[in-house]
Amino acid sequence: MKLKADRATLLKALAHVQNVVEKRNTIPILANVLLSVKDGRLTIAATDLEIALIEDVPVDSAQDGAVTAPAATLYEIVRRQPEHATIELDHQGGDAPLALRAGRYATKLVVLPTDEFPKLDAGKLSHKFAVPAQALRGLIDRTRFAISTEETRYYLNGIYLHAAISDGTDVLRAVATDGHRLARVEEALPEGAAGMPGVIIPRKTVNEIRKLLEDVSGDIAIALSETRIQFTLDTMRMTSKLIDGTYPDYSKVIPVGNDKILRVDTHEFSNAVARVSAITAERHKPIKLSVARDLLVLSATSPDQGTASEELDGDQVDYTSTPLEIGFQARYLNDVTEQIKGHVEFCFADGGAPTLVRAAGDASAVFVLMPMRV
Amino acid sequence: MKLKADRATLLKALAHVQNVVEKRNTIPILANVLLSVKDGRLTIAATDLEIALIEDVPVDSAQDGAVTAPAATLYEIVRRQPEHATIELDHQGGDAPLALRAGRYATKLVVLPTDEFPKLDAGKLSHKFAVPAQALRGLIDRTRFAISTEETRYYLNGIYLHAAISDGTDVLRAVATDGHRLARVEEALPEGAAGMPGVIIPRKTVNEIRKLLEDVSGDIAIALSETRIQFTLDTMRMTSKLIDGTYPDYSKVIPVGNDKILRVDTHEFSNAVARVSAITAERHKPIKLSVARDLLVLSATSPDQGTASEELDGDQVDYTSTPLEIGFQARYLNDVTEQIKGHVEFCFADGGAPTLVRAAGDASAVFVLMPMRV
Repeated sequence: MKLKADRATLLKALAHVQNVVEKRNTIPILANVLLSVKDGRLTIAATDLEIALIEDVPVDSAQDGAVTAPAATLYEIVRRQPEHATIELDHQGGDAPLALRAGRYATKLVVLPTDEFPKLDAGKLSHKFAVPAQALRGLIDRTRFAISTEETRYYLNGIYLHAAISDGTDVLRAVATDGHRLARVEEALPEGAAGMPGVIIPRKTVNEIRKLLEDVSGDIAIALSETRIQFTLDTMRMTSKLIDGTYPDYSKVIPVGNDKILRVDTHEFSNAVARVSAITAERHKPIKLSVARDLLVLSATSPDQGTASEELDGDQVDYTSTPLEIGFQARYLNDVTEQIKGHVEFCFADGGAPTLVRAAGDASAVFVLMPMRV
Repeated sequence: MKLKADRATLLKALAHVQNVVEKRNTIPILANVLLSVKDGRLTIAATDLEIALIEDVPVDSAQDGAVTAPAATLYEIVRRQPEHATIELDHQGGDAPLALRAGRYATKLVVLPTDEFPKLDAGKLSHKFAVPAQALRGLIDRTRFAISTEETRYYLNGIYLHAAISDGTDVLRAVATDGHRLARVEEALPEGAAGMPGVIIPRKTVNEIRKLLEDVSGDIAIALSETRIQFTLDTMRMTSKLIDGTYPDYSKVIPVGNDKILRVDTHEFSNAVARVSAITAERHKPIKLSVARDLLVLSATSPDQGTASEELDGDQVDYTSTPLEIGFQARYLNDVTEQIKGHVEFCFADGGAPTLVRAAGDASAVFVLMPMRV
């Protein structure tokens, strides 16, 4: 294998794939990336046995071949080269080290046999469809904060992506919940997604695909089966295992008929939450919302530090129903309001019941928050 | 106590003093700041029993009084207020909570008695002198990286500041060493510093004063005795205990007569160190310098990852003595070269002896590095 590549191009691809590599792992080959040159094209691959990421990289004067080398070291070496450097890679085959040259810098990296590098077989992918990058970012951003981190309920450790019918329309729906809050976000069902199996995409896959979405626009091709999902973005292809479990019937958790509606400027509300919650460093302390006609008082108490409150009134608040008091964790409120622009609507039943939260005038996302005793 | 203050002004002072407060401490009063209004002037104070910081803050319509309140909480509350907010503080005396208002936000903070707040008595300070902020920054920046973190040799856990004679000139000298490297930096001896006791300024004091120096210019007033040092910067006064110990005779560590001089562009050198050291994540692995006539080869080896090398030649390197090989820890090289602009000079005796490092044409700072076997 022999090639010349532009530092910036190579660095970008290495940054992508080395993210997938687990920092601590006991299987040496999993710390390596697989570099393969075939017909003048370089592909770089990494895997943690759950996720595999492959990226095509444009290179010059390539000689076919393949080798595996330490991912983090290779990335660091390329990163520290001068900005416009040309990187030369040369591998004479077998156990020979991978030689890398850039100007007067030279390194020889220890390699491992390419046949040890695990292949993540995608198998037959029954459903194929395309989602605009922007829409996929929205599905992820507005749900992933609610993914459970509790390992006992492993089937909640991901986003549940499935086809559903919402108000008579076919939708692609993403749901996440940790039992304290739930997020449900919808997009128009893409062509080819009808009849797809409901799949639970693991948190790491969600986070890795979200990082890759930062740099891309246009359509993302998604292909999936009951056990695998594959995303194709530009020159990258990520294949991931899915969580093997049954997602609970979340629809029972979403309240219907919550008719006490508080409408408040999201920016003012989240700033008030930040100020009022500053009284306590304890993350699990609730913020109390006391709602009356066109008046919202946020308050919090800490036995050690004191009390804090802030009023939002008719300029920022719209409420015409009966007064009520209800408590929520500050960070749960923040997680939801961070995803909402303009005005946020809280639909209450009473001070002890699950509350539905949504962006005013946007039916595509609903959030459910369980109250805390205050 | 009653006052109105501008958020930005109050925030800046709270940011300064709350830095001194230890995040974890078992004595409740030490988590608090002391707010005192006298003759219409607010002072804010914090202490960890080793360091005390007092800052004057301009305020409006003040009523005299004093109170202590939780430092971190007060800082967070003020920080989260809108940029141009006016903060009102009101304390009715005794156990009454400290009321803070800003617009429609209100908090009542739990207070502790002001007489519990420890006073750090500076005692009689025998020597008083002034050092330009820029010079004090230089003394700190070019020595503090070498302060030892080993608690057994507690007398090395600070910067040794003393009056000395250098080439027949009176100087104010700062020294730090951890046994592996040493830094010695000098400034002209200020008026009033002659005959001062040599003092060891603890690391935390060094770091806190360095933060405060970020925002100030002009002269810094220093007063000290054998047990205390006091810095006056703008509206701030920091008093600190000194390390009670005898600083070792460091002069024996500084080699004389090292006549093999390598002169190299600092920027090129430190970039080459960064690239060559990328081969190993182990911080304690040495970088080998192989020096010959107008040639420097840097190299490193990692049994797991491979080898790396880079050449710097006659364009960047000047060396006319006999060839030698010597090894140093990459981060020790970085710490020194970060403090040097232009060209760096390494003065070697041989591959096994302490090496003297300095900025070309700058006699004010010398560094000593112990070599490692390579």
